[in-house]
Amino acid sequence: MTFDLDPRIDAASHFIAELGLCQVRLQDDARWPWLVLIPRVPGAVELTDLSREQRVQLMDEIKLASEAVNALGASLGRLPEKLNVGALGNVVPQLHVHVLGRRGDDPAWPGPVWGFGSAEAYGEALPLALDAARCGLGLTGAT
Amino acid sequence: MTFDLDPRIDAASHFIAELGLCQVRLQDDARWPWLVLIPRVPGAVELTDLSREQRVQLMDEIKLASEAVNALGASLGRLPEKLNVGALGNVVPQLHVHVLGRRGDDPAWPGPVWGFGSAEAYGEALPLALDAARCGLGLTGAT
Repeated sequence: MTFDLDPRIDAASHFIAELGLCQVRLQDDARWPWLVLIPRVPGAVELTDLSREQRVQLMDEIKLASEAVNALGASLGRLPEKLNVGALGNVVPQLHVHVLGRRGDDPAWPGPVWGFGSAEAYGEALPLALDAARCGLGLTGAT
Repeated sequence: MTFDLDPRIDAASHFIAELGLCQVRLQDDARWPWLVLIPRVPGAVELTDLSREQRVQLMDEIKLASEAVNALGASLGRLPEKLNVGALGNVVPQLHVHVLGRRGDDPAWPGPVWGFGSAEAYGEALPLALDAARCGLGLTGAT
């Protein structure tokens, strides 16, 4: 069994990097600085499908993604006031963790972002957003 | 600085147990088997406010709570089909992690539960639900 990214995750986001456990992607929704971590563990649906070692690594990568979301938000001129971290998977079962930044002036505040309105693609701003996210992850800015 | 439970969390949930890091509580909403983990770390708002050791312990307790949510759901005759795990804190900043069970026939499916409709208190079924949660956590059923 190999790791294959669900095509719905693929369509809604852009590849940023492979971390030790997860593929990290930028959600293509400029309303929020928003990263998605997908553990490269074939068949994983729940956090409990990971080994303890993998769960610990996931937590480390959630922390790294949290810092990158803050950096991405700052680069977009909207420094997050609160982070939201969620593993839901009601629509796409493949295990994935959302890490995103919220502000009191964002359109869904204080409700959750999932299922709220329609995504607003980055469009021409995508390369800058990807670079900011890479930089926030401590990777080089080069693509 | 001491650990004090936010009164809004206190009002919406019932004490179950103290784990190594977190107080675990039953959300008083019978629509979903739903536990809340609150790390006893004064002032913590984000996952990144925890030390690495605390984050690892939180992940262990999320796994335990996941198993307890499945047990609680089964005892209520509604075995979860999907777990949702989320740390949001948009309304109550005190760091807390929701662990709850979802089903395709639940009222909010496939959307998120947070902010959806109004809680339905357990009422007379509360003691049984608390016992089922305690049992699922590997604690004695005795109150």
